[in-house]
Amino acid sequence: MKIVFASSHEISQHEWIEPLAQALPGAEVVLWRPDLPAQDADVAVVWTPPDALFQRERRLRAVFNLGAGVDALFRLPSLPPDMPVVRLEDAGMAVQMAEYAVWAVVRASRQFDAYVAQQGAGQWQPLPELDRAQWPVGVLGTGVMGTRVAQTLAALDYPVAGWSRSGKVPAGVEGFAGADQLPAFLARTRVLVNTLPLTPETRDIMRRDTLRQLLPGAYLVNMGRGDHLVEEDLLALLDTGHISGATLDVFRQEPLPQEHPFWRHPRVTVTPHVAALSLRRQTIAQVADKIGRFMRGEPLTGVVERDRGY
Amino acid sequence: MKIVFASSHEISQHEWIEPLAQALPGAEVVLWRPDLPAQDADVAVVWTPPDALFQRERRLRAVFNLGAGVDALFRLPSLPPDMPVVRLEDAGMAVQMAEYAVWAVVRASRQFDAYVAQQGAGQWQPLPELDRAQWPVGVLGTGVMGTRVAQTLAALDYPVAGWSRSGKVPAGVEGFAGADQLPAFLARTRVLVNTLPLTPETRDIMRRDTLRQLLPGAYLVNMGRGDHLVEEDLLALLDTGHISGATLDVFRQEPLPQEHPFWRHPRVTVTPHVAALSLRRQTIAQVADKIGRFMRGEPLTGVVERDRGY
Repeated sequence: MKIVFASSHEISQHEWIEPLAQALPGAEVVLWRPDLPAQDADVAVVWTPPDALFQRERRLRAVFNLGAGVDALFRLPSLPPDMPVVRLEDAGMAVQMAEYAVWAVVRASRQFDAYVAQQGAGQWQPLPELDRAQWPVGVLGTGVMGTRVAQTLAALDYPVAGWSRSGKVPAGVEGFAGADQLPAFLARTRVLVNTLPLTPETRDIMRRDTLRQLLPGAYLVNMGRGDHLVEEDLLALLDTGHISGATLDVFRQEPLPQEHPFWRHPRVTVTPHVAALSLRRQTIAQVADKIGRFMRGEPLTGVVERDRGY
Repeated sequence: MKIVFASSHEISQHEWIEPLAQALPGAEVVLWRPDLPAQDADVAVVWTPPDALFQRERRLRAVFNLGAGVDALFRLPSLPPDMPVVRLEDAGMAVQMAEYAVWAVVRASRQFDAYVAQQGAGQWQPLPELDRAQWPVGVLGTGVMGTRVAQTLAALDYPVAGWSRSGKVPAGVEGFAGADQLPAFLARTRVLVNTLPLTPETRDIMRRDTLRQLLPGAYLVNMGRGDHLVEEDLLALLDTGHISGATLDVFRQEPLPQEHPFWRHPRVTVTPHVAALSLRRQTIAQVADKIGRFMRGEPLTGVVERDRGY
């Protein structure tokens, strides 16, 4: 079996190629380079690969994506429409997302940033206690990531709801399904946490007319994709005060351009797409396991349904 | 039945006295005042009461404390040594403590303060991923508060241990018991979270010779009492770098004096004793229930064991 590893990022032989080869004895793992001839590889392991990969490698039987989101991969014109694509599931990312969401939510609800500012001013001033009932959290997307986010916030006694295509949610979380129930979901939500995959249906899902349906003083946490959020609509609603703040990890353009107003907005927290990093060791183990299953014809999870886009 | 409500804080008739009377039909609830004659009350409900309460009210059969910590109450010379004291349990405080601990821990482990600083500088710079194995958390005290703190951090996949007199810990948490096992507990701990009650045995438990046993780059979270921590020892260990930072909610003197170095220390976060506020509605309901049980001679929880001090 031959595996081609392709990425637009710099890939360390020592960190990725060798451990993957070790995890798949008998497999040959080569790093894709634009100047190499076709390798006739059986499968590709990719992380934002160049389109040229699919022009050159014509014998691929499957692509294994080193991330949970496959939106960038699907934008490559040369990706054959019937090519099986397998995405990363969890690999240590769900817990990081849950942690990021808790950090963002409790800073808002418990006013911890205000306490940090008070410390700067040498002020000892307890603020009114938190009434959790006033901070209903709504999680967009209830896959592996969203489910863990919802469970973690529910365990801290926030009222939590989840919205997804199916409306499937874990115990203790209120479920809302599909476009029909989106208004009811938004109307009971003050903190909106996005963990959706990016598809034609979810692009721009956070825009003026949806964000306006959130409870007053709403707070936004975006860990999905930048293209889920119409950024100028968020800025407008921050101005009116309907949205009280936002913690954003993803942006329409990354790195976030220097001149972007988010950088200096007093109520926007910017992080550089780090809410959840796939952990190398867990990622390699999972991809190796999935490749093994695929080659042996065994069932495997994370196979993307092309028509729904994730 | 007559109940006297006594506090050195200003007590609102509307917020406390009336709801307590409503929750205990048939009981008379009076607010203690230094200028009133003895009320011959059956029980006292107290929140940092004046010593004069126990000099004047000689027929008290029990004292119900509106907080989990009874150390201040026990310092009053006139509190009869055999007076039953019942403390508040949870009343919405455990979840707040868990939340505060998560906020403090993830800011340290995920370097979120560094990201906030980077935003200030307009810098887009992902930092190395978190290896949770490098951030073992140790919780001092495994009562209602400490147990919830430990469970919450364990649910975020941190290695968590608990230390207490008994060593009793919830599932998924490593237990250490008593003075004998304190060194082993400290030696495996990087983030030390204190939720202990203040007793003669636990006073000054966080001092140079214990803090030095923590893993290098240790982080301190104090939600117990100021007297648990020898503050100058923490400052010395921050200087040497053995301790990398601290989030402190309680202090030997409160409010924290203006000239105290914690206010301006770059690696110390100060909050004004707000990690856990007892929620009024839950507190009143719990105290009313406990008073009812006591008067009917039924079993009740939260009765302080005077010899152990909590």
